Amino acid sequence: MSDLQQDEFFMRRAITLARKAWGQTHPNPLVGAVIVEGGNVVAEGFHAQDGGPHAERVALANLGRAPKPGATLYVTLEPCSTHGRTGACCDAIRESGIRRVVVGATDPNPAHTGRGFEVLKAGGIDVTSGVLATECADLNLIFNQWIATGGPLLAAKVAITLDGKIACRTGESKWITGEAARADVHAWRRYFPGIGAGAATIMKDNPKLTARTASGEVWCPLRFVFDGLLRTVTDAHLPDVYTDEFRDRTIVVTTQHGGMGYVKKLRNMGVQVWVMDTPTQRVGFADFRRKCVEEKIGGVYFEGGAQLISELLRSRQLDYLFAYRAPLLFADDKAKTMFTGLRPERIDQAVRLSEVRNEVFGDDSLMRGRVTYPEKLLLDETVFSLR
Amino acid sequence: MSDLQQDEFFMRRAITLARKAWGQTHPNPLVGAVIVEGGNVVAEGFHAQDGGPHAERVALANLGRAPKPGATLYVTLEPCSTHGRTGACCDAIRESGIRRVVVGATDPNPAHTGRGFEVLKAGGIDVTSGVLATECADLNLIFNQWIATGGPLLAAKVAITLDGKIACRTGESKWITGEAARADVHAWRRYFPGIGAGAATIMKDNPKLTARTASGEVWCPLRFVFDGLLRTVTDAHLPDVYTDEFRDRTIVVTTQHGGMGYVKKLRNMGVQVWVMDTPTQRVGFADFRRKCVEEKIGGVYFEGGAQLISELLRSRQLDYLFAYRAPLLFADDKAKTMFTGLRPERIDQAVRLSEVRNEVFGDDSLMRGRVTYPEKLLLDETVFSLR
Repeated sequence: MSDLQQDEFFMRRAITLARKAWGQTHPNPLVGAVIVEGGNVVAEGFHAQDGGPHAERVALANLGRAPKPGATLYVTLEPCSTHGRTGACCDAIRESGIRRVVVGATDPNPAHTGRGFEVLKAGGIDVTSGVLATECADLNLIFNQWIATGGPLLAAKVAITLDGKIACRTGESKWITGEAARADVHAWRRYFPGIGAGAATIMKDNPKLTARTASGEVWCPLRFVFDGLLRTVTDAHLPDVYTDEFRDRTIVVTTQHGGMGYVKKLRNMGVQVWVMDTPTQRVGFADFRRKCVEEKIGGVYFEGGAQLISELLRSRQLDYLFAYRAPLLFADDKAKTMFTGLRPERIDQAVRLSEVRNEVFGDDSLMRGRVTYPEKLLLDETVFSLR
Repeated sequence: MSDLQQDEFFMRRAITLARKAWGQTHPNPLVGAVIVEGGNVVAEGFHAQDGGPHAERVALANLGRAPKPGATLYVTLEPCSTHGRTGACCDAIRESGIRRVVVGATDPNPAHTGRGFEVLKAGGIDVTSGVLATECADLNLIFNQWIATGGPLLAAKVAITLDGKIACRTGESKWITGEAARADVHAWRRYFPGIGAGAATIMKDNPKLTARTASGEVWCPLRFVFDGLLRTVTDAHLPDVYTDEFRDRTIVVTTQHGGMGYVKKLRNMGVQVWVMDTPTQRVGFADFRRKCVEEKIGGVYFEGGAQLISELLRSRQLDYLFAYRAPLLFADDKAKTMFTGLRPERIDQAVRLSEVRNEVFGDDSLMRGRVTYPEKLLLDETVFSLR
């Protein structure tokens, strides 16, 4: 193996370690580290939860002795150079006597980027950076967003046919994508602190909005139901997310136009309700974003429906998109689509993904990336009024 | 490297060699071969054109001496066991003294599959098969179709946004995909003996329908213009494909309902015209397929427009689909789509791709595969009559 291949090999192991805390470190990042001596991994570590020790310190502690001369530390994220609750990792590395550090992603805080490298280099340590940088940065979509913007990552998932449809004309949509893609959806559900769906989706599908973890357990994120008029609540019937054992993890996001009797009813059942003060009967997503900041909720993964996600897009509030594509063709103008309400006239007026990742799951593919908006977003006002 | 890694390494070289004759071997397959002694390639060969020697024989001839003991022959396609114009390659391999043969794809002719292996094994040769079988089979989409069905591969290409659109509501479509994807389109154009487009596309875009080869030269396939009523021909104006230096490579496919004066005019200009006898004013693609068999045309790559390709699909005549996807969102119900005219009510009534390949070109992705139809294809008869 070349030096680069060797560095990538050990960085992959550090990434695997980082993923062990998948979804469990918010608001902190996922970070993994390995210590290598003579071509062998002699100690491993990862950051397990907020408040716990950083991955580098865990690996050094697991080593339990001084690293041998020639030892290398691999870590997926630039070591911190400032004293937080756990002390600066750069100091711990210098004190350990390790003389070479290989880093994946840089610190996403523009004020800190590269400072960890400087501190290490000033200590006479040989630093290699940018090894599998993309994969390492992808571990922390939510953390990076919070550091960069001070707010949550609002993401959406869509599973579409090759020709862009989310359901047959009859509404039938089970299943468009295959098992491997659906397992990846569950993994991302587990990653996000919150999951979001609109009233129509809740009423039509009565979804659980839980996630299966890698070990097969059921995990429940915060479940946001967007329902400006509390249409999901009737005297006769309630969806499962208001009554199941995780109902205290359900947050109904409504407006002052929803019935206050139903708000009280939900709260009495243990369901949380956010009543947003808006002039319209719809929840404004800029307001929702501000509320997430107040509540320190780092990210929400929206799974539908079409109107909710189109409104996110129209209001420039959708930050990230996961688009699974299956090798199916409906070839039907009347089949259902996810995205509507814009009217670009030229390619450069379209919404575009950046930092694009293409992945394959069985026969399906996933295209995901950060949503970037044209300077002027042309809205088709006729669409929503028609509904 | 493991034995398998080593086999794959040399098979990749054989694939690269096979590709040197990309598009130039019809009706024969692309085949590449290398001879390896002591871990080094000592001779290479590929099948350059119909009637020329097979790849295995070229490699043996290039070696110019008897292979050393322990030599291995790598070949992308199962060696022929029957005497064609060039003699059975299995015999040549046995006579050469080579004791090990590694093969990629099996012979696509069900009557011959595995026979080459038997002949080699009967000669005491150690045979490893299935190394990079998928990649090797993919070299010969057209040859394999011809062997399996006795007819051409009718394929279509579509470049769509993430939400399945081929153009803005204004018709603007340049460019949805990026340079790398468009270069791949040119490579596939070069692979197919023929390229197809509908009258509307010819009139709107006036395309050249030529291909850039890997070396940057312009190459012109047979250019099929589907124009049941000869709408592309007027006294005042003719598209470039009827007048440029490659016009003898243009074939207008029309019906007896097209104006016969214009048929004569085109033929006088050197343009070929196929007048199909049909009860309707549209060219039937089953008839077109039969005509391709008569004319020994192994494959046609359709690039549009939407109506033409939807008709191919509706008539179950589309065999293969190349679907490029770009990270763009139009989110506009009025933006243009490629596929229409079906009305599946359940997922299992949809058209599906099989033998799916997902590839990445820059930020774009390509999903391609063989089109498989449900037993009952539900047509939406309202769509075409509305147009």
